[in-house]
Amino acid sequence: MTFSFQLQAEDAATGARAGRFGTPHGEVLTPAFMPVGTQGTVKSLSPEELAAAGCDILLCNTYHLMLRPGAGTVRRLGGLHRFMGWPGTILTDSGGFQVMSLNELNRVREEGVEFRSHLDGSRHMLSPEEAIRVQDDLGTDIAMSFDHLVRLPAPPDEVREAVDRTVRWARRGLEERTRLRDQGRGGMALFGINQGGTTAAERARCFAGLAEMPFDGFALGGLWVGEGRTLGLEMIERDCAEFPRDKPRYLMGVGHPVDVVEAIARGVDMMDCVLPTRNARRGTVFIGTGRLVVRNAAYAHDERPLDPECDCATCRKYTRAYLRHLFISGELLGMRLASVHAVHHMISLVRRARAAVLEGRFAAFRSGFLDKFASRETLAAAAS
Amino acid sequence: MTFSFQLQAEDAATGARAGRFGTPHGEVLTPAFMPVGTQGTVKSLSPEELAAAGCDILLCNTYHLMLRPGAGTVRRLGGLHRFMGWPGTILTDSGGFQVMSLNELNRVREEGVEFRSHLDGSRHMLSPEEAIRVQDDLGTDIAMSFDHLVRLPAPPDEVREAVDRTVRWARRGLEERTRLRDQGRGGMALFGINQGGTTAAERARCFAGLAEMPFDGFALGGLWVGEGRTLGLEMIERDCAEFPRDKPRYLMGVGHPVDVVEAIARGVDMMDCVLPTRNARRGTVFIGTGRLVVRNAAYAHDERPLDPECDCATCRKYTRAYLRHLFISGELLGMRLASVHAVHHMISLVRRARAAVLEGRFAAFRSGFLDKFASRETLAAAAS
Repeated sequence: MTFSFQLQAEDAATGARAGRFGTPHGEVLTPAFMPVGTQGTVKSLSPEELAAAGCDILLCNTYHLMLRPGAGTVRRLGGLHRFMGWPGTILTDSGGFQVMSLNELNRVREEGVEFRSHLDGSRHMLSPEEAIRVQDDLGTDIAMSFDHLVRLPAPPDEVREAVDRTVRWARRGLEERTRLRDQGRGGMALFGINQGGTTAAERARCFAGLAEMPFDGFALGGLWVGEGRTLGLEMIERDCAEFPRDKPRYLMGVGHPVDVVEAIARGVDMMDCVLPTRNARRGTVFIGTGRLVVRNAAYAHDERPLDPECDCATCRKYTRAYLRHLFISGELLGMRLASVHAVHHMISLVRRARAAVLEGRFAAFRSGFLDKFASRETLAAAAS
Repeated sequence: MTFSFQLQAEDAATGARAGRFGTPHGEVLTPAFMPVGTQGTVKSLSPEELAAAGCDILLCNTYHLMLRPGAGTVRRLGGLHRFMGWPGTILTDSGGFQVMSLNELNRVREEGVEFRSHLDGSRHMLSPEEAIRVQDDLGTDIAMSFDHLVRLPAPPDEVREAVDRTVRWARRGLEERTRLRDQGRGGMALFGINQGGTTAAERARCFAGLAEMPFDGFALGGLWVGEGRTLGLEMIERDCAEFPRDKPRYLMGVGHPVDVVEAIARGVDMMDCVLPTRNARRGTVFIGTGRLVVRNAAYAHDERPLDPECDCATCRKYTRAYLRHLFISGELLGMRLASVHAVHHMISLVRRARAAVLEGRFAAFRSGFLDKFASRETLAAAAS
């Protein structure tokens, strides 16, 4: 039940790190990219396809699963791993972000957040303690602390209040895990979430509070919500400078390949995002040389794979012409094959970043990646 | 290029047969059930999943593929097998059924059928010759003759006229294949289609015309379009009594498990239907004991697989509770896992029928199957 993160290498020229940690469901290599299985499935993909893409850790959403099918149901059915047939590691979020973003009618009090289900309008309450109990019922490997986020921009006193509450709620979550452990449950790791929006002083103040608590890792919360890349990266750099070296750092909700590499360069170890797979289902995929719009007429006779340098199950077998046909024809297999590529591409990206850190050449990897991504080289139609 | 059907066994008590034939893409065992890959994909499934379900032959739709992506495009991309990544046998229909059913504005003349695309309203012409050329461009293993079907009920002279035209068109299709073969193409097998609706005398007259021609197999056309099971089965019995023993008999558009077994009992060797997979995508699957509606609330905590006696990839791994959750949540993986079961279930059914014929116990298999299918035994929720 002891969560332990092993820092394997730190890049000399940047903040990039390589590490690993173990959970009851296997080893996770960092930097890690976590595909999102919102409702207990990474949309359109099987667990076997995720594993074949190199995935060792998934994120699932506490908010969605507590409402449907219900945390108690998942628990009775043997927990989330068994329910969805995923043998690897699972990290669950705390539900806090969805409670705020999917519910206009929520009421935030010191006790917790009262909200109505976006599915049927039924009333629910999520507190720091309940968020921990729900995640324990789901059987997660890594739980997240229930935090208070504010919609930015917000007045300074509102940001300050949210920071204070986030620290109080973080402590209550840890105490709830201790109670669960006294009952022989609560075996999961628990990460604290740093808040404070884009106010550097508030983020530092928030972390000063969190740093005293025995969290297994720390997350960078409240970022990538519209503040702009420059400001976001600045906050990442500041947070990572405060966070301890010996614990994993998780940047929530970031998944554009360029952002992922820049976040890694600043010391981030874990990320999640629906962007790559959501884009893929809509027919847009990231490849090494940029962003490819599959249904582009230019690909109607293109016999190349989506990414000529990719070795995912889709790129090894199917042409752009076939993928385009599937999307134009509204075929489900198109979403699926594009999603296979999307997940593989992100995991391959963080694996290559990891190898670069371990081999002391991350800076070169990063500039090579950025140049190539901007090149748009293989996006043009093949000469026919 | 010689198509040869080997009749391996005939049941003593019924008309059931077991056989096999080879194509450039492998061996096909009969009775065979062909999943339908309308637009060059069996909706939601990968070729690997089809093969794992025991599938050795697929049906693809000439009408859909000639309009999108176009037969010429498929040909330039190496043919349908390569385009869609399916290494097994492919049978294509002639396009005649869709031209009639998807187009209110078609004009049938002796030359062929003029129609407008259901996609963009563009004008097209499909003739007996063009249907053969298109199927050759697609690279099919088994092509179907372009027939004239009438919407039933129809006046006797309309049925008679359609029969006469079907026979004339059948001859023109064979002649076109001969022309193609003279050019080193047209290597595919070609099946004739019997018509005549539910008028026994007309069907017999139609077949008298077709029987003289060197088709590689014969299809039972114009059935299962609303005439009722009793009348349909009577027509099947009559057709099969006329058809030669040494050629495969293909009943078009039949896929309900009970109909499949009854058709086999009357001498049918091949069938296709979208029903099992379309039902599956809508959350209804056939299992050994009847028809299971996956989203039924009774299955919310049911840890059994869809079919406790099935060994498909879905039933080996997932519970009804999970499948129900996926359907209730609108998740694509639900359609996919249900489709895997649906295809496996139909192919397993015809394989068991085949084994029963080979072992001289088809009558017992048939009554055992029918009794069990009517039992609804495992459809009730598990006691909890």
